[in-house]
Formats: sequence, structure tokens, C-alpha cells
Amino acid sequence: MSIQTQAAEMKLAAPRLAAAGSAARSAALAAIANALEEKKQEIFAANAQDLAAAEQNAVSPQIRKRLKFDESKLSACLAGIRQLSAMPDPVGKVLLSRQLDEGLILKRISVPIGVIGVIFEARPDALVQISALCIRSGNCAILKGGSETARSNRVLFNIIKEAAVSSGLPSDCLFQVESHSDIAELLACETSVDLLIPRGSNAFVRYIMEHTKIPVMGHAEGVCHVYVDRDADFGKAIPIIVDAKTQYSAACNAAETLLVDEPVAESFLPAAAKALKEAGVTLFGDERSVNLTGCAPMTGSWHTEYLDLKMSVRVVDGVRAAVDHINRYGSRHTDAIITENRETAALFESLVDSADVYCNCSTRFADGFRYGFGAEVGISTGKLHARGPVGIDGLQTYKYILEGSGQTVAPYCDGRKEFHFKDL
Amino acid sequence: MSIQTQAAEMKLAAPRLAAAGSAARSAALAAIANALEEKKQEIFAANAQDLAAAEQNAVSPQIRKRLKFDESKLSACLAGIRQLSAMPDPVGKVLLSRQLDEGLILKRISVPIGVIGVIFEARPDALVQISALCIRSGNCAILKGGSETARSNRVLFNIIKEAAVSSGLPSDCLFQVESHSDIAELLACETSVDLLIPRGSNAFVRYIMEHTKIPVMGHAEGVCHVYVDRDADFGKAIPIIVDAKTQYSAACNAAETLLVDEPVAESFLPAAAKALKEAGVTLFGDERSVNLTGCAPMTGSWHTEYLDLKMSVRVVDGVRAAVDHINRYGSRHTDAIITENRETAALFESLVDSADVYCNCSTRFADGFRYGFGAEVGISTGKLHARGPVGIDGLQTYKYILEGSGQTVAPYCDGRKEFHFKDL
Repeated sequence: MSIQTQAAEMKLAAPRLAAAGSAARSAALAAIANALEEKKQEIFAANAQDLAAAEQNAVSPQIRKRLKFDESKLSACLAGIRQLSAMPDPVGKVLLSRQLDEGLILKRISVPIGVIGVIFEARPDALVQISALCIRSGNCAILKGGSETARSNRVLFNIIKEAAVSSGLPSDCLFQVESHSDIAELLACETSVDLLIPRGSNAFVRYIMEHTKIPVMGHAEGVCHVYVDRDADFGKAIPIIVDAKTQYSAACNAAETLLVDEPVAESFLPAAAKALKEAGVTLFGDERSVNLTGCAPMTGSWHTEYLDLKMSVRVVDGVRAAVDHINRYGSRHTDAIITENRETAALFESLVDSADVYCNCSTRFADGFRYGFGAEVGISTGKLHARGPVGIDGLQTYKYILEGSGQTVAPYCDGRKEFHFKDL
Repeated sequence: MSIQTQAAEMKLAAPRLAAAGSAARSAALAAIANALEEKKQEIFAANAQDLAAAEQNAVSPQIRKRLKFDESKLSACLAGIRQLSAMPDPVGKVLLSRQLDEGLILKRISVPIGVIGVIFEARPDALVQISALCIRSGNCAILKGGSETARSNRVLFNIIKEAAVSSGLPSDCLFQVESHSDIAELLACETSVDLLIPRGSNAFVRYIMEHTKIPVMGHAEGVCHVYVDRDADFGKAIPIIVDAKTQYSAACNAAETLLVDEPVAESFLPAAAKALKEAGVTLFGDERSVNLTGCAPMTGSWHTEYLDLKMSVRVVDGVRAAVDHINRYGSRHTDAIITENRETAALFESLVDSADVYCNCSTRFADGFRYGFGAEVGISTGKLHARGPVGIDGLQTYKYILEGSGQTVAPYCDGRKEFHFKDL
């Protein structure tokens, strides 16, 4: 069956998965957790083959760590599934209940988006997490994982799908796409697929965004800022900057640019530069920063995402200049201010046009698990639908249900009747 | 100034409009209403020129009615603005408040989307309504109205913008684009414009969707259905079908297809066909319907939007077949079931994958004013962000604000600290 045909079947199955009910979805998650536990040797064996192939292909040890699926990753996955299983069902919430007129009741109800395509990096635990998120949120999913873990993915996928279907979910609730060339076919399924979530390199995400008519959720870039205000507590500022830059510099929520308020540039920047240098960070600064710290001059764009132990530094004149820099050169991801002045913090929080705006903490907190969402399917820098870390709530849309007793519109148009709105 | 430059300026102004506060936006709306009232002779004079030109260009009287802006349309506009002005501000609502750990508080806050481009039909009242909706919801707007009312639009726009700016809103909060060729330039502003809302013919909306990278909200088609179930009350069914088809057949929420449950086809269809014929409707049916009513046979696609006094008819076997037809051939707009059976109604409501799903009332109720939203900027058949009629709530997104006291992520990763989630 072509991907187009499978996706079309899935589209028709999607309302049935949505209607399957919370208990059925929770039972499916429990069945999946049990099946993964039971068949773990089969999973580990497939993963060992993937790892051997990776070693043969001279894949770096750092990346091989991500490909690995062992006892500890399995138990983290199982804990995640059980957490999701225990979360309140996001489907069927009454978001609005309003009487339009006597006997004419409008409700806005949360419903799953429908069919979601997720293209993700070579990490077996990502396949488990994404499947679980989609089932918990009532969405059908088309999965395409990185090919370096194809064997692990195949085994994991078969276990998950069999457990889901045998516990009563529609047989079209999940399918997996395996070859890289299938991606092009998936991108053309705009009549059946409601949402695409690509995860991976900026170039890859941008490619997906430019080659499909399906709405895309995700982020191409994370150019995150830390702004140290004139009223900052330096004792907080330095550890936060070091954490935001170095705790995991390849992450999208790692800071890329340090902005320092002019009145404290002289007292703060040399100390900050020293701490960053000790943490292995190379700085690229504007003229003022170069003069104060002796760092290399910034030659590239302020819109640079290093994803590495490198950082841009600029001295700005006050919080409004910082906001202006961030709204011009940022990527609407996560930006922080360090200040003890509540008024300045409030101004920054209201004017910075990003998904996550922080005060006195590290940008690295931008993450679905850290927000208490259980897990995340990705982080969105788009401004429509879901923004920031996206959990099961972000995989819902809504529909309006209107129940009447024979009402027509004509009498409301010609004045014989009028609406009497009353929220219930 | 090029449109690109103006849009970029507007993007930087958008957070300032968002932060301007509810009182400032309400005051601006009041100032706009007063200014329109005060300068109405100027508006009517410009409109008279538009109408004279339309007559010279042999525009049909029916369309000229829409171009007209007179005392009664002005007072409807003023009533709408005052209603919007009195509505609770949608900006700054706390949608989630959660302690992640001691002294680390996460909030999800509603914020305006930012910069919205609206391309709308030649109706001067639409310009007023859209401007008012954008100001109330805290969004900057780029407006492009139909050229047949260019003179009226210019006068109205200048009055509205002057009133808004002189009451304290940022001077970049609104601008108007006048020539048709400017549309292409607007479509290329993906780095500055957050959302496009095109209104008009299907072909036009589809053209916009296919020629921009900016997210588009709207609907290209309204293929709406009425399904008459075996447990329908015919006394409700016939008036609802006549209303849904004929009350305003050119509207997107008018019904295009009548589905009738097999067990009641023989008793119901001839009476329904008679009522529709008396209302001027031509039917196109499947074989069974042709046999029962003598109507013309259906030769085109079931996915046809007539926007006229024409209707497709098909006999289906039960509610699941009706749902299947709607999910296959509909446009996810508005679909209704007529039944006295609550269980069947619930099944239809849960399985039909449309923005608006009705029971025992006319599809023509799908409208922001009729839902009590004050007004609507359009109706969305997309499944992301806002769905169905879109009012000021649909023009909001959200941001996460995280306030700490120096927290870094490292101790949460290495086990020295852990999260203690608590909704506040």
C-alpha cells in the first residue's frame, strides 16, 4: 500500500481513535509498557545490531550513545509512559458552554488534531515517547525515525502497535515509514495529514517547512539570549549564563548571545568572561565587549546559533535596547533577563516576543518535562496553535457542538427572534 | 516606504501594542466610534463616488448593495465597536500557573499574535469591523480591501488610524495596502507578518494559501451537510433544510448536500424535495433519490460547493455511512444531523471531523456574531490554532513566563535537585 493510501485510511480512522475514550487509551499505554518490558531482549538484540553497524560506519562514540537503547533507557521510557497514562485525558474537555437562545446550546470541546506525521532523530527512546504522546492525546501517528536505528525502530514499533491494537485501538492508529525516500511521499499527503512535526537539524526542519503544504510545528533555530540588566545580582547572573551556555550547548534552548546593560558592563563583563572562559567558552564581542574583555571581535550575524561552546556578546543601553536586539535577531524561542528590579522584569516579559521569556533562571528550563507536561513532542517557535514546549495539550484542537430543537436562522435575521447569550 | 519595510516596523511595534493595556485599547475603540460618527458625511461622500463608479462599470445591483455604506451600516458598525469595547480584554489572561520547584514559577499568558494581514472583500463595513477586532485583540493589522470601494476604504482607514494613534496606540499599529499588485509584496513578508486572513472566493483563498509562507487562516470551501436520521422529527427537518439551503445560499455555511437515512428515505424524501422545490432549489441525486423524487441525477463530485439554489442528495445507510460520506467529501466546515435519538446524535457529534457539528438546527448558525463572539474575522476550516468562527480569542497566542531566583538546570540533571510540580 502506498503511503498516500495508508494516510487516507488513517484519516478516516482518526475520529474513531478520538472517540475511543480515555480508558481505552490508558489501557493501551499500560499494554505497551508491559509488552516493552516483556520483549526487552528482542529490542536490545536489534539495538546491538544497530550499534555494531554504527561502529562499522565510524559513527562517533558521542552519537552512538544516543543510538543506544539499554536497560536504563527502557526504564526511563516505561516511567514516561506510566506518567502519561496517569495524566488527565486532554480529549473531550468542555472549553466553552453557552446558551445562544432558549434551547440552543453551544459547546467548544477539545478533540485530537487527527493525523500527525513525526520525523525524528535516530533515538529509539524518541520513537517510544512520541508513540505514547500521540496515543495519550488521541492522535493517529505516522512515524519516521532516523535510519541509524532502523532495526531497533522496527522492533519497537511492532511491539507498540501490536499492544495498542490488541488492547482495542483502531488498527490504523499508527504506521511507520522506513526509507528516507518515503519522506517526500509523506510531505505530499496534505489531504490526509493534519500536522507534521520534524525534529533534527535546522537545515532539515527548514527543508521540511519549504517542501510541504501540511502545517509544520517545530523550530528551525534557537537563538536564545541572556540579558544582564543594570539591577542584576551578579551572583545569580554568572551561574545562570554558564549553565545556559554550557550545560548542554548543542540544545536548542542553550543561550547563544549575552547582552549586558551599559552601566554594569565594566563591572560585570570581565568577571563573566572569565567564568565563561574557564567553562571552555569562546566569546565574540562588539567593540565595547572586546575592549572590556579582550575577546575576539564579532564578525558574523547576531542571528547566529552556534550549538557549541561559543557565544556572542554585546553591550546594550538598557532593557528597551535589549528587547529590540532580541526581537530583531532572536528566533522567538527562549530569552532571559537577570534583574532584581520587578518593573524592569515585567517590561522585558511583556515586550520580548518569544515563546518562553524568563527572569533570573537558565534558558535551559524550556522543555516539556521540566514544565511538568510529562514529555514533549517538540518545541514550537511558531506563533499559531501551540508555542514553546508542546505536550499532549498542544496536540489538541477543538470543535463546536451546537444542539438545538429545530432552530433556523431566518427568524434571527428578520427580527422575529433575537439571541440571548448566557454562559453556562 | 516599501510594504516589506512597513511590515518590519510594524513587527517591532507589535509588542508595544500588546503591552498598551486593555484601557488604552478600549479608549481607542471609543475614539474610533466617535470619529466615524463625526465624519460620516465625508465617508458617505466617498462611498457615493465608489457607487457611481460601480454603476458606470455595470456592477450588478446585488453587489452594489454590498459596496454601499449608509447611515444604517454605520450604526451597525458603531454598535459592533461598542460591543467589542465592552468585551473582556483577551490579552494577559493567565492560562496556567504552576510551581516547578520552590521559587520557580511558570505562567502561560495569552498574548496577541502580533502582525496580521487581512485581505477582504469590497465592503466598507468589513474594514471597520476588522480594524476594531484587531485593536480589541491587541494585534497590528495590514489591511487590503476590495478595490471597488477604494475611496470609501481610504477615508474610513484614515479616520480609524488617526483616532487610534491620537488616543495613544503606536503609530505603526495599522496600515493599508491599496493596489492589487501590493498583495504579492505582502505575501512575501513572512519574517514580519505572523498570520494572513484572506476572505473572498474559493479560488482567491486557495491562491493566497499556495503563494505564501505565512500561516493562513480561513476556509477555501464550505461543503456543508444536513443528515436526516431514521429517528428525525420531519417537522424539524424540513424547515432546517430549507433554511440551511436557501436563507442565504451564497454563504459558506449554507448546506450543499442532503443525506437521508435509508429507512426514512421513502417517507421523507418526496416531502423534502417538494419543500425545496417550492423554495426554488434544484436537486441532484443519487439513483435512489432520483427514483424517489424524480430529481436530476448527480453527475459531478460529492465535494461540490454550489453557493446557489442547488443541492446534492444521497441516500445513506445509517449514521456511520453518513459520517463516512461527510469525512470523505466534506470540507470540515459545518455539518448537521436531524435526529431525536440522543445516542445517534452523540455518535455523529463525536465522529464528524468538522469545525462545527450540529444537531437539530440550521448550518447557518456557524457565525461569530451568532456564537456571541461580537464579530468574527473569518471562519477557519484548518485544524490548527483556531477552528470555526474566529473572534478576538482566536487572535491570541500565548507565551510562557518563568520567574526564578537564580535557578540553573544542571542540579536537576545530575540528581542534586528535583522538580516539585504544583499547580497554583
